[in-house]
Amino acid sequence: MNALKLKDGTSRKSAYDLRDTRHGREQVHTLIVVVDNEAGVLARVIGLFSARGYNIESLTVAEVDHQGHQSRITIVTSGSQNVIEQIMAQLDRMIPVHEVYDLSGEGPAVERELALLKVRGQGNNRVEALRLADIFRARVVDSTIESFIFEITGTTEKIDAFTDLMRPLGLIEIARTGIAGMSRGQHSGPWGETGRVAWSGSAAEDDPVEESSGP
Amino acid sequence: MNALKLKDGTSRKSAYDLRDTRHGREQVHTLIVVVDNEAGVLARVIGLFSARGYNIESLTVAEVDHQGHQSRITIVTSGSQNVIEQIMAQLDRMIPVHEVYDLSGEGPAVERELALLKVRGQGNNRVEALRLADIFRARVVDSTIESFIFEITGTTEKIDAFTDLMRPLGLIEIARTGIAGMSRGQHSGPWGETGRVAWSGSAAEDDPVEESSGP
Repeated sequence: MNALKLKDGTSRKSAYDLRDTRHGREQVHTLIVVVDNEAGVLARVIGLFSARGYNIESLTVAEVDHQGHQSRITIVTSGSQNVIEQIMAQLDRMIPVHEVYDLSGEGPAVERELALLKVRGQGNNRVEALRLADIFRARVVDSTIESFIFEITGTTEKIDAFTDLMRPLGLIEIARTGIAGMSRGQHSGPWGETGRVAWSGSAAEDDPVEESSGP
Repeated sequence: MNALKLKDGTSRKSAYDLRDTRHGREQVHTLIVVVDNEAGVLARVIGLFSARGYNIESLTVAEVDHQGHQSRITIVTSGSQNVIEQIMAQLDRMIPVHEVYDLSGEGPAVERELALLKVRGQGNNRVEALRLADIFRARVVDSTIESFIFEITGTTEKIDAFTDLMRPLGLIEIARTGIAGMSRGQHSGPWGETGRVAWSGSAAEDDPVEESSGP
């Protein structure tokens, strides 16, 4: 389709994109860290980012193995590829860390977030809020005669879009979990470690839920 | 119904529950902390817990106000009431902290979590996994010919129940966000600050989604 031979890792959008994107530019990374669920481990993991002045855009942590007492941390941060690789190497050397990988590194992945939105309004605004919630497949989880709490799940972009629509309709409070994610396909963990999945045909190309749930 | 006059805050389950539950015993607390979205703030917030040897069972953080650059942190931890109050007072004195309150302190609240589960199996196991997912209102967000990724939302208990059911059917990976929550009713923030809502009749007594979505 495209006769131009562009450098690997670049796009056709702008001259700025002709720079090497892999090492120079700041990119969004979604890191998965599996750790022992012990007091202080989270503080040490986060310390590696704040020591470099790196902001954590979203972080989720919850115990995923109650018998083995292991927690899974998902961190979304922006940074250059080589600094992220340094942080990952340091994480890998920490005793309570069992697994580290960059979900945005390679291969397709599912990334999802949950948000609760409290919207207060009457009359037309209330009707419109319900109508839009229906389009975005948001569920009502609480209601009073002049307010709703909607629960919505999806990508960060979808939730941003829904939030922007609710703002003029009386949005008064938002709670978001931040991203949880995993690689698509039939293997657990990162792609390289357990064998790369043959993506063509086996994995769903697009998320069937997402496709029909946005406007 | 009950002729026994029990001490306030106790239940009839066991003699141990006759102890004062408010100050002595370790309880689960869900704390909401609204902060400026700056590098290092999360590390300082978490440091207050790890300095006391308090384990964080779940933590979610995401930017909820893109213009004002404010993030909302939800922390689930176990501890005695007075230590939690100490931590909250310290948080309140931190410069980038705008708001702190204990969601489990008083009044009804909505607490929700999102989980992704990768289940690998064939034949009957695959059919059974889909059937249970339907009962729990989990959605398929990725599939190959021998695996699914399910997305499920709900309380921690509901997700634990679904996880236990999926384990023998070929569960190979779990990602959970941890809790995001807010008070029920039509006011934003904590109940006390913005006026307590008259709960009888105005707010839905039970979550309509939850009621019909578990077995």
